[in-house]
Amino acid sequence: MIDPGKDIDIPEVLAEVTAAFARYEDALVDNKVEVLDALFWPSPLTLRYGAGENLYGYDAIQAFRAARPAQGLARAVLRTVITTYGRDFAHTAIEFRRIGSTRDGRQTQTWARTAQGWRVVAAHVSLLG
Amino acid sequence: MIDPGKDIDIPEVLAEVTAAFARYEDALVDNKVEVLDALFWPSPLTLRYGAGENLYGYDAIQAFRAARPAQGLARAVLRTVITTYGRDFAHTAIEFRRIGSTRDGRQTQTWARTAQGWRVVAAHVSLLG
Repeated sequence: MIDPGKDIDIPEVLAEVTAAFARYEDALVDNKVEVLDALFWPSPLTLRYGAGENLYGYDAIQAFRAARPAQGLARAVLRTVITTYGRDFAHTAIEFRRIGSTRDGRQTQTWARTAQGWRVVAAHVSLLG
Repeated sequence: MIDPGKDIDIPEVLAEVTAAFARYEDALVDNKVEVLDALFWPSPLTLRYGAGENLYGYDAIQAFRAARPAQGLARAVLRTVITTYGRDFAHTAIEFRRIGSTRDGRQTQTWARTAQGWRVVAAHVSLLG
């Protein structure tokens, strides 16, 4: 059970997730596919809803990244909210704008601590309607 | 730490979250605002990215629901994935189509168990681009 009085944003947990999130964002902009792959939970249960596709399972997500053009991924992050719940679970949310785009985007990620480190277990990216 | 071998989809936890999720979906379609409000975590950290708006904090989400027209919320759920991590965290994802719409939508929710029961701590709704 989550106790809002003591389980939210425990400083060392928040620092860990913030670092993992920063690593992801850096890898995304530079299309470092191996880092992106490493930060997703390697499970058939992992899912990613992208701006234009619904991907179920780590293999589908990996295949999508491998096929995606490396250009045009640069984006400015306009707002970031990272929240941790206890020591093993977290959520990250950003508003962003792709360079050259006029529509704002949103990215949310749910993270869990695994034996290998923090991993994204679910993600959702969309453009504001 | 989440151990994939024993922490994922513990049957009684999955049953609890499935019931909470069903209650949410039922309330959404019928615009039972008080039930929707009750199922969101009453915190300034709660966030909801909707198809056309970014809402930060429980109060903003509640105000949005109170102002939203009650009509046109009916939707068919095309695919559902509910996953639980340990005993206190869960993620739900659906693909849906609003009645009368030609575009598919996606809804993801991150849930935590609180003293008051399972609550949505973050949500993201979007239309496939």
